[in-house]
Amino acid sequence: MPHDDDLCFLPALELADLLRRREVSARELLRAHLDRIERVNPAVNAIVTLVAERAFDAAKAADERLAAGAGPGDVGPLHGLPIAHKDTHNTAGIRTSHGSRLADGVPDQDDLVIERIKAAGAITLGKTNVPEFAAGSHTFNPIFGATHNPYDLGRSAGGSSGGAAAALASGMVPLADGSDTGGSLRNPASFCNVVGLRPSPGRVPTWPTAAAWNTLPVKGPMARTVGDAALLLSAMAGPDPRSPIALEEPGARFARPLDHDPRGLRVAWSPDLGGLVPVEPAVARAVESAVTVFEDLGCVVEEACPDLAEGEEVFRTLRAWLFEISFGPLMDRCPEDHPDALKRTIRENTEEGRRLTGPALGRAEVAHARLFHRVREFFERYDALLLPVSQVVPFDVTAEYPTEVAGVPMEDYLDWMRSAYLISSTGSPALSVPAGFTPEGLPVGLQIVGPHRADFAVLQLGHAFEQATGHWRRRPPR
Amino acid sequence: MPHDDDLCFLPALELADLLRRREVSARELLRAHLDRIERVNPAVNAIVTLVAERAFDAAKAADERLAAGAGPGDVGPLHGLPIAHKDTHNTAGIRTSHGSRLADGVPDQDDLVIERIKAAGAITLGKTNVPEFAAGSHTFNPIFGATHNPYDLGRSAGGSSGGAAAALASGMVPLADGSDTGGSLRNPASFCNVVGLRPSPGRVPTWPTAAAWNTLPVKGPMARTVGDAALLLSAMAGPDPRSPIALEEPGARFARPLDHDPRGLRVAWSPDLGGLVPVEPAVARAVESAVTVFEDLGCVVEEACPDLAEGEEVFRTLRAWLFEISFGPLMDRCPEDHPDALKRTIRENTEEGRRLTGPALGRAEVAHARLFHRVREFFERYDALLLPVSQVVPFDVTAEYPTEVAGVPMEDYLDWMRSAYLISSTGSPALSVPAGFTPEGLPVGLQIVGPHRADFAVLQLGHAFEQATGHWRRRPPR
Repeated sequence: MPHDDDLCFLPALELADLLRRREVSARELLRAHLDRIERVNPAVNAIVTLVAERAFDAAKAADERLAAGAGPGDVGPLHGLPIAHKDTHNTAGIRTSHGSRLADGVPDQDDLVIERIKAAGAITLGKTNVPEFAAGSHTFNPIFGATHNPYDLGRSAGGSSGGAAAALASGMVPLADGSDTGGSLRNPASFCNVVGLRPSPGRVPTWPTAAAWNTLPVKGPMARTVGDAALLLSAMAGPDPRSPIALEEPGARFARPLDHDPRGLRVAWSPDLGGLVPVEPAVARAVESAVTVFEDLGCVVEEACPDLAEGEEVFRTLRAWLFEISFGPLMDRCPEDHPDALKRTIRENTEEGRRLTGPALGRAEVAHARLFHRVREFFERYDALLLPVSQVVPFDVTAEYPTEVAGVPMEDYLDWMRSAYLISSTGSPALSVPAGFTPEGLPVGLQIVGPHRADFAVLQLGHAFEQATGHWRRRPPR
Repeated sequence: MPHDDDLCFLPALELADLLRRREVSARELLRAHLDRIERVNPAVNAIVTLVAERAFDAAKAADERLAAGAGPGDVGPLHGLPIAHKDTHNTAGIRTSHGSRLADGVPDQDDLVIERIKAAGAITLGKTNVPEFAAGSHTFNPIFGATHNPYDLGRSAGGSSGGAAAALASGMVPLADGSDTGGSLRNPASFCNVVGLRPSPGRVPTWPTAAAWNTLPVKGPMARTVGDAALLLSAMAGPDPRSPIALEEPGARFARPLDHDPRGLRVAWSPDLGGLVPVEPAVARAVESAVTVFEDLGCVVEEACPDLAEGEEVFRTLRAWLFEISFGPLMDRCPEDHPDALKRTIRENTEEGRRLTGPALGRAEVAHARLFHRVREFFERYDALLLPVSQVVPFDVTAEYPTEVAGVPMEDYLDWMRSAYLISSTGSPALSVPAGFTPEGLPVGLQIVGPHRADFAVLQLGHAFEQATGHWRRRPPR
């Protein structure tokens, strides 16, 4: 049996196998992770609510199922694997704060995504930290403070699934769920040297949600390897009548092996999204070097990028609209001088939403369709597009956001995330996979973008890259 | 071989079979329909553009394929069947007017829906009349005038797929395509004693469209029988990368036989959408009598209706928004005093769209989601919901719209369509199937509504009802 701490860095796929073969029990595995959390979490602050006792009961029940004769095929694909849920996902009977005193409470119902993960056999051990209402890509809030980057505790873990990424990187969980409107599954993965997939809209059905047809916010998996992310996706994906935009393809499709020879694939790459974003030189160098790996893998690599400029209007407008829908009533109840008032950035985006006109939303929606078609046509010529995930390396954990990137001043807390959020506007699936490190040892992520709904192909390509490089395996943050 | 005019009233499924077995040639079949059009269309005005020569060439090519040894399985499901396309669907090389001098021209590209119908082997013989830009449910426009109801030439054929419905009823074509935002596949079917299906959003992918994610406007099939509608749907449905909301289920699924014993199905019905709409007594009586058929079929029938009141705000708001997107620029170029100015009703709805605020659209979108879930929960208790399609019998063809229904004044040209458009807001598939006749011999339609995406089940139930009643077979308008 591996040493406890080693257990905490094994891939989820291997752990699932050990559990099924009863070489490791769910209780042992849980204990190893709880031990690690106890040692590491005080400095990292990734897990903000821990439900050790409840998790132990669930692990015991899981072990008993196998002991009682349930075969490996009788248990769910996540049987016995510890997991922590993003604190913006409601968990029945478990504190869910959304990073705000205005929404902090104990829900009596699981969100659909939690329902599925539990049904697949995972063991919930707690909740992962988020920015206030998941707004912005740096994880800090008035209740739990900031999450620290396991590779440099003085730096940000990214966000909004920042607690999830930091927990994964530091071995506190082998799997974590997240969500992504403008990069929230990708930026933190990039900052913490782990994997995050923003799936195609509808791949992971969302419920409940106030705007059921909206395609900007999506749920998705995070893990330390691409294969593990696919494993979690297999439990999260698939149709559900509660989501009118749910894709019909069964989640089980993502449980198939990802091995696939990428020779001959036509891969486009752009260092700066076609000149639309400044990128810090250390990031640019790591991504450029990652791109050469695809050449080594036999891909036909070419510098090219669809025109993503309209994504700016699309993302900013549709997001402001969503903010008005989500936070308008709350802002009226708790104005600026309220002790728990929404943070300034959320108030500003909500005000923006209030000022929107129908015709402005119409223009954004038409641009949204135009951008979709432009990118669709681009993917008739290329199988994938490689980009930086983040324009910056993990920044000072005490800063609110980077105020400049490569000498270019940033207008607001979203500006530095443009390399991620422009892709959100396209409807494409996008994977953040470890690309390497800066000379000072900070992780850099590579963004692999594929055609609408080609989530599996994106995972396959990410897996091939990961097999060739193994940045996670080579340098965990211990 | 049947007599020429009889050919024009056979079901498309039978004709398809005769063609495949080479008992009828595509040319003969076309000639029979062209003859009938020549005799009947001057009074009905359903077909506004005829492409006889082009159709003859296509029919010849179709016959030659079979003569050259192509087996019945080598040709498309619509092989050799004459069809006419809604004049708001762009047809490459064939005049497409959209019912407006502002858009009248010869496109160089087929809409996706036309591409598919052609690829399935159908023979385009012309275009069917529409209201100006398909706005409103009565078919008249400044280029081609009004379409007349084949059951009473002094009355409306409904709309906006009014030319399609009238052409089907009078034997000019065995199949026709249409579209439906607020009832445009259902009201004309109801008025003309034929079948129209408003499919679930994404079932028939739409391209091109300015608002690619919008779920209010859908494309769908019209025919004289439910089985024929399913046949056409099998060619129209299925995923396409050009539509980001396309359902993944292959169209071929709808080619399966519809026979299914409805015994034990839980069927709800409401004479007035839960008290939300006035209904003319003659319509109410026909629908009520149709409902008893479901009891005879062994269904468990109960009077019940989900609360659809919010559909009013949802439909009116989202439709006005779409009008602003679609007609705003046109209205600026051609103001009220322009010789080809948009009709008053379109201008008013576009102005409404201009006055919309982001928050108003947000409220409508949240209500849209709430309504979806209310109806979804209703369908956990019931398999289908029966309603009147139209609140009125076919009205005076010279009127713009009914100004009152059962003594209740109607506010505008949409008001009398509420029984259809409230259902558009729910995301449910809805079938209009002949329900019987008023004492004066005017057709009445029954609306069968099913759960989101349960299009096949709705067709099955409609088919069972049709088999039991045969209103089409019993009284065609010859």
